[in-house]
Amino acid sequence: MVSFTIQNVLIAASDDYATVDVQIVDGVIAAMSTTVTERSRSAGYAYAPNLQAIGTVIDGKNKLLLPGFFNAHTHSSEMWQRGIMSAFPLELWLAELYDFAPLDPEQVYLSALGTAVETLLSGGTSVVDHLVLIPGLELETIAIATRAYREVGIRAFIAPLIQDESLSAGIPSGESAQTHEPYFRTTAATLEIIEEAVRQFHRPDEGINILVAPTGIQLCTDALFQGCIELSDRYNLCRHSHLLETRAQQKLAQEKYGCTAVEHLKRIGFLSNKTSLAHCVWLNDADIAILAETQSTVVHNPLSNLRLGSGIAPILKYRQAGVNVTFGCDGASSNDSQDLLEAIKIGSILHNITDSDYQHWITPRQAVEMASLGGAKGLNIADKLGSLTVGKKADLVLYDLTNLSLLPRTDPIGLLVLGRPTNVVNSAWVNGKQIVADGKVTTINVDELRQELFNRSQWETKRKSETVAQIEAHYRTVMGL
Amino acid sequence: MVSFTIQNVLIAASDDYATVDVQIVDGVIAAMSTTVTERSRSAGYAYAPNLQAIGTVIDGKNKLLLPGFFNAHTHSSEMWQRGIMSAFPLELWLAELYDFAPLDPEQVYLSALGTAVETLLSGGTSVVDHLVLIPGLELETIAIATRAYREVGIRAFIAPLIQDESLSAGIPSGESAQTHEPYFRTTAATLEIIEEAVRQFHRPDEGINILVAPTGIQLCTDALFQGCIELSDRYNLCRHSHLLETRAQQKLAQEKYGCTAVEHLKRIGFLSNKTSLAHCVWLNDADIAILAETQSTVVHNPLSNLRLGSGIAPILKYRQAGVNVTFGCDGASSNDSQDLLEAIKIGSILHNITDSDYQHWITPRQAVEMASLGGAKGLNIADKLGSLTVGKKADLVLYDLTNLSLLPRTDPIGLLVLGRPTNVVNSAWVNGKQIVADGKVTTINVDELRQELFNRSQWETKRKSETVAQIEAHYRTVMGL
Repeated sequence: MVSFTIQNVLIAASDDYATVDVQIVDGVIAAMSTTVTERSRSAGYAYAPNLQAIGTVIDGKNKLLLPGFFNAHTHSSEMWQRGIMSAFPLELWLAELYDFAPLDPEQVYLSALGTAVETLLSGGTSVVDHLVLIPGLELETIAIATRAYREVGIRAFIAPLIQDESLSAGIPSGESAQTHEPYFRTTAATLEIIEEAVRQFHRPDEGINILVAPTGIQLCTDALFQGCIELSDRYNLCRHSHLLETRAQQKLAQEKYGCTAVEHLKRIGFLSNKTSLAHCVWLNDADIAILAETQSTVVHNPLSNLRLGSGIAPILKYRQAGVNVTFGCDGASSNDSQDLLEAIKIGSILHNITDSDYQHWITPRQAVEMASLGGAKGLNIADKLGSLTVGKKADLVLYDLTNLSLLPRTDPIGLLVLGRPTNVVNSAWVNGKQIVADGKVTTINVDELRQELFNRSQWETKRKSETVAQIEAHYRTVMGL
Repeated sequence: MVSFTIQNVLIAASDDYATVDVQIVDGVIAAMSTTVTERSRSAGYAYAPNLQAIGTVIDGKNKLLLPGFFNAHTHSSEMWQRGIMSAFPLELWLAELYDFAPLDPEQVYLSALGTAVETLLSGGTSVVDHLVLIPGLELETIAIATRAYREVGIRAFIAPLIQDESLSAGIPSGESAQTHEPYFRTTAATLEIIEEAVRQFHRPDEGINILVAPTGIQLCTDALFQGCIELSDRYNLCRHSHLLETRAQQKLAQEKYGCTAVEHLKRIGFLSNKTSLAHCVWLNDADIAILAETQSTVVHNPLSNLRLGSGIAPILKYRQAGVNVTFGCDGASSNDSQDLLEAIKIGSILHNITDSDYQHWITPRQAVEMASLGGAKGLNIADKLGSLTVGKKADLVLYDLTNLSLLPRTDPIGLLVLGRPTNVVNSAWVNGKQIVADGKVTTINVDELRQELFNRSQWETKRKSETVAQIEAHYRTVMGL
């Protein structure tokens, strides 16, 4: 493990900035110099670093150092369909998505690389990949995504996406009596795959984590949830799921359980301080209280929620209730990018229209904390990650404050969160290992990746999904369209 | 005037793409080869350009050619305060903005350059600058912004921002009796400045246009509006104004006129096919019908409307009513970037949550048309700009489809609008003159601009606005906070 010292770098300190030196030893933040704030500096105090440089010296001048962000919910292989998905709500969009899902492990590998690169270059050092598994090649899918994340060096939380009901079961029945095809794989077989994945790939110390990740109440039986809870307890795994992304799912929960989805998930014991839940758009106040009480984390995916017309998650209410919130890009078929800074910006300012009292609005500094410490909390790892704290792991990002998109100089974090920063990530480290330098990913050849993505795709216009043709009329009826 | 030919380039053609050659002669699209669609090409037809190359040959392979977009509402000098403005609604935000407004013409020059560069590198070839005038240096402000836009070569619509009531008049009185300081300059003097600006700077053939641009009903008397209408008629000038950005303005219009702002503006004759109106968040159905009937244009500034908590403009209703809509970034103190592709993305997908019927949602192709032809219509220049049409002016943008953010290859326009494209503008031309080549602005030195912006600014944290301290209590009372 290499050691290094970042000298003379700007960091956030209480409500001000400070210029400090930061020592990293064996992948851990070993020491930080006593801070000199910008205010005291402009009042005439000289900059006086008091740390000896250890190892490689990194010049932090005119740069901002922040803890790495978490891309806390995505589906990497959706990259293959970004830009082309129809303007549909989730239920129809899913049908189109699965009609054209990539079935080649090599594609999974390339899109995991692409997801990692875009996340890194927008400030993320961790990614939660709710990974779509190729039927019949489930463990191979997990293996190849693991390989991709290890090669890039990003910290990966691989959450194999599992279900045990067929797609049509995810749409409310309404007045009609609907029957659904049984799912092609048994619940037990699915749980065996996950357990085997844990044995083969779950290596937290090496930056690779497996999560139990039922897709959501809309497509999973209680037996599947309970199997996941058991695995989570046995192997100390985090839990991840979609939750109440759409109004249709809210209806479905009532049909299925006679109560809200949150009440049901609490009853069966899925909610915990190791549980992160993507979307959470259609929760009521009692549901919100349950999330707070169980210390569950909400992963906010604002762009996906707009793109699919899902709605605006009540993020200000979550914050007021003490629920931990962090951000995700969601899969690139519903966003259609993996730019975490974009998700943080929109995920902050979107809520200003939901509460006319501006004193409740999310400030840029709060947004940064949600994206870093909030992400770590959601993965039950806040003791090791998520802030610039001596003793925590060095998952760090250094931003170039001389980039046009961050000028003129005003409030660096304000510019980063509220602006549209491009090409601003100068360096990134995961576990103390540098994986971005001078604005370039150093661990893989990004030009080759581009060439592969180009060669394996072609420009096309709108496709026709056969499944959508089958289910659209029912969807419109049930949803009153 | 140079001539050139773009060969083998992808363009949008009906609901497909075509590979064509495009000839530009004397600043005008002179000819386009018969189109070969991607579908017919993949069906085995060979690519057969049938145009002889004239002038310089530009290789269009793996690139997409679109008409330049319009950044149809911004305030360039707000760039100096981006990133640092408090989380406030418009009325308080304005007070903070003006307490720290730049008063140096050189700053106006630099921020106009910066606004032009960011607009260009995100697909815009025209900018509507609702330009804040330095008191006492009004014509100098207009002169220096004009100089900046001429140097960059972007097409500029300079709309000097004028008012004749003081800032506090923009907040509803509520039950209280409020008196306001008189504005420091008379209505007549203001109109004289505008008329002089028209004489000195209005040169449409050279790409510089002056607009009459009262800031809005909240700070302008009818006399000012009427003076603007007269100038508009006499000199054939377009008209620009803010309209009903906030709920407070909706209240104020009722206090001031006893009717809606739109009804009042119609009555005094401000609305026309030369009138573009920024924001339009708080209109009712009758107001919308008036905009359609008068052929007025709505400029949608989605990011600013979120950032300031103004609300969601009813854009789908405008489109259904036949009102022309285009996009703006708004000033960088309320956005805080001038990335037009970001405004187009958010301004499209934001509305999916306002109408559960996805058949009404804005598609990427519609968004592109709104940003190009919609912008031209709003400036009464659709006969000359806004589409790839033989005979129209060559304001063109060439996008590099091999950039990682536009891969894998799917639907190029879908990727451009719904993704988060970075560094994708390869070339841009205004009036046939190339001003971006190989991803770089060729007309000014952007590194020098960065250095100037850096040198004239400093990192700072939150400031205290004295005006906000004076008016905040009244604002909270009137707005029921």
